[in-house]
Amino acid sequence: MSRYDGASASFHEMWRDLEPLGRNAGSGGYRRYAWSEADVECRAWFRAQAEGRGLAYEVDRNGNQWAWLGDPEAQDAVVTGSHLDSVPDGGAFDGPLGVVSSFAALDELRGRGVEFGKPLAIVNFGDEEGARFGLACVGSRLSAGQLGVEQARRLTDADGISLPQAMERAGYDPTAIGPDPERLARIGAFVELHVEQGRALDLSGDQVGIASAIWPHGRWRFDFRGEANHAGTTRLVDRRDPMLSYAETVLAARREAHLAGAVATFGKISVEPNGVNAIPSLVRGWLDSRAADQATLDTVVTGIEKAAREYADTHGVELDIVRESFTPVVEFEHALRDEIARILQGASDRLEVPVLGTGAGHDAGILSGSVPTAMLFVRNPTGVSHSPAEYAAEDDCVAGVIALADVLEGLTRR
Amino acid sequence: MSRYDGASASFHEMWRDLEPLGRNAGSGGYRRYAWSEADVECRAWFRAQAEGRGLAYEVDRNGNQWAWLGDPEAQDAVVTGSHLDSVPDGGAFDGPLGVVSSFAALDELRGRGVEFGKPLAIVNFGDEEGARFGLACVGSRLSAGQLGVEQARRLTDADGISLPQAMERAGYDPTAIGPDPERLARIGAFVELHVEQGRALDLSGDQVGIASAIWPHGRWRFDFRGEANHAGTTRLVDRRDPMLSYAETVLAARREAHLAGAVATFGKISVEPNGVNAIPSLVRGWLDSRAADQATLDTVVTGIEKAAREYADTHGVELDIVRESFTPVVEFEHALRDEIARILQGASDRLEVPVLGTGAGHDAGILSGSVPTAMLFVRNPTGVSHSPAEYAAEDDCVAGVIALADVLEGLTRR
Repeated sequence: MSRYDGASASFHEMWRDLEPLGRNAGSGGYRRYAWSEADVECRAWFRAQAEGRGLAYEVDRNGNQWAWLGDPEAQDAVVTGSHLDSVPDGGAFDGPLGVVSSFAALDELRGRGVEFGKPLAIVNFGDEEGARFGLACVGSRLSAGQLGVEQARRLTDADGISLPQAMERAGYDPTAIGPDPERLARIGAFVELHVEQGRALDLSGDQVGIASAIWPHGRWRFDFRGEANHAGTTRLVDRRDPMLSYAETVLAARREAHLAGAVATFGKISVEPNGVNAIPSLVRGWLDSRAADQATLDTVVTGIEKAAREYADTHGVELDIVRESFTPVVEFEHALRDEIARILQGASDRLEVPVLGTGAGHDAGILSGSVPTAMLFVRNPTGVSHSPAEYAAEDDCVAGVIALADVLEGLTRR
Repeated sequence: MSRYDGASASFHEMWRDLEPLGRNAGSGGYRRYAWSEADVECRAWFRAQAEGRGLAYEVDRNGNQWAWLGDPEAQDAVVTGSHLDSVPDGGAFDGPLGVVSSFAALDELRGRGVEFGKPLAIVNFGDEEGARFGLACVGSRLSAGQLGVEQARRLTDADGISLPQAMERAGYDPTAIGPDPERLARIGAFVELHVEQGRALDLSGDQVGIASAIWPHGRWRFDFRGEANHAGTTRLVDRRDPMLSYAETVLAARREAHLAGAVATFGKISVEPNGVNAIPSLVRGWLDSRAADQATLDTVVTGIEKAAREYADTHGVELDIVRESFTPVVEFEHALRDEIARILQGASDRLEVPVLGTGAGHDAGILSGSVPTAMLFVRNPTGVSHSPAEYAAEDDCVAGVIALADVLEGLTRR
């Protein structure tokens, strides 16, 4: 029996229970949208895990779930966790791997007989992916005061259901949503474990890495407005077809991102009237763009906007561009990052743990403005994420649990 | 008082009654989908118009409405009419102008004291636009035997309601739908008046024109399949992004159509998973293309398909192309067309009535395989159609009524 068979068994039992919740039979992907039935099932799973381990369970004012070992009111708590919601047809690992690994790491530490010198908590942040209301990290943003209460109350999903209505229908109280500075002030360190959403660890041959920074990123909505007309009878010269400027802008985005070593994606579109024989009156496309630094991102997005305006002018199409969200670069606290590196190097016989940047946003990025924060990444052999094909190997997941346990043991001791 | 004040008053009274039915308050456009509540209201209006004029009202086996002056069982009837259903947020004129003008032309002829030598009928064909079940001209296709009964029974709308169920709910009997050759054999000529869906009459300065042909046209579905992945963390070189090949294909379609003097449109799209931060796994785009002749259309579509396959290969994307529908060129019967031209030239002091082709499909096109068929077009000053902005001037509509009355008078005399 290997040293880590206990952690492995604990991990797998949880993984098996969580796996069917919110899974779409057709695609094999997950549809765990915030406050949906699937999300409520995942939340019930979280509560059962907490209570089954004798942890104190609570829900904060923004619907985030907490499981406490030790006094939740004491200072300098060590907190770990992630999220359980998903993008449309997302993978099994993005989010849940961090939550499951947190409980498994606690089991591992209890197996080691560790006495905790500080309170320890596991958290499930609500609505990290933003799939339902269009804004990511709503739970952590609200708690950190990075999302206005009125703005949050106005968020609506595609069916016109508001965020407070959705919370209420899921059995949560939306009346007190808002900043939670006292709770955050009691946290000494927050560590989020996450599946890597790229292939850096695979290319370097490592199972686990530490985050250096989250790239600045934003979402922009491009509304191309032309004139609806009959696709069979309207001469090309009489058309004001917004699909053409949209298509040109998609290609411009790829070009600008390539030139700058950044990424830019048009992955979501909405067309009116969206009929086979109708020239569209409106093509609405969303741009997601990210780069290693702010100046590069500005260059990319400015280039795309300029090109889009020229294309729209050429086709007699009106263009409105709205920045829907923006997150500046996040540099994780260097002292905590270095401490975690020392812990992991001490626990293994390796000289160096890889430190890597990422283009993905996370609750850890949001919290980093209020709390010392760090992230661990687990190897993703294909780099695929936000897809049913997202995958991490069993051995790498267990290595992540052990690394997280080592880090929590070290941090609760310091 | 001008010579045509009677026709004008009759036209306007009907127009006013029909105008509010099925109108969407938000867009100002019409949502008169086949067998919907709005369609049932339009059908009640048709029946009231027929009965108010002492015409014999009947519904054929496919739910098309008929109003007869003279013996419906006699041979060599002259039939006019159009349809009352609409595309999503369509205009007021496409379809209804032909039906209203038919009743107004009858009023005009009665005002003239014309004695009809042949039976005369006004028809409202069901489900011309195909907005609900995805197939255009269902009523006329069924009657002409151009749509199989079993295929028709299998048509379902977006809510899973089948065509027979929809007919039944609207109070119509679907049990006998199918070919109606005896009815069609009794028709000596069918003339459909329609608002022009282009600007040819506006450019030539004419109020009314005659159709020469309906261009061949088809619909093709392009399925670009790539790999869903995280928009923030997937390097450009690791992507298989189907949105890029889609965008390139949209631009290729415009280019090929321009070179050939044809039209090609991508107006409908469906994306999976359609998330802002997800590279799509599937971009499904529909191409509508039409040209004056078959060879030109083949050239255009072959060119687009070839370009699309090259783009897909470049991006590691799989492409399936499916032809969803196709309608060959329709040449309206030359003898009837020439007779109508002589009638209209004789009734006015003009030497020539414009004869024009059209890219739009019509019930008249479907019937032309079974019955001598012709079409009249009324000037559309903006060319806009299938849009709330679709418009025809009052004077031009009345000119259309008078022209149709002249044609019906001439044809029932011959």
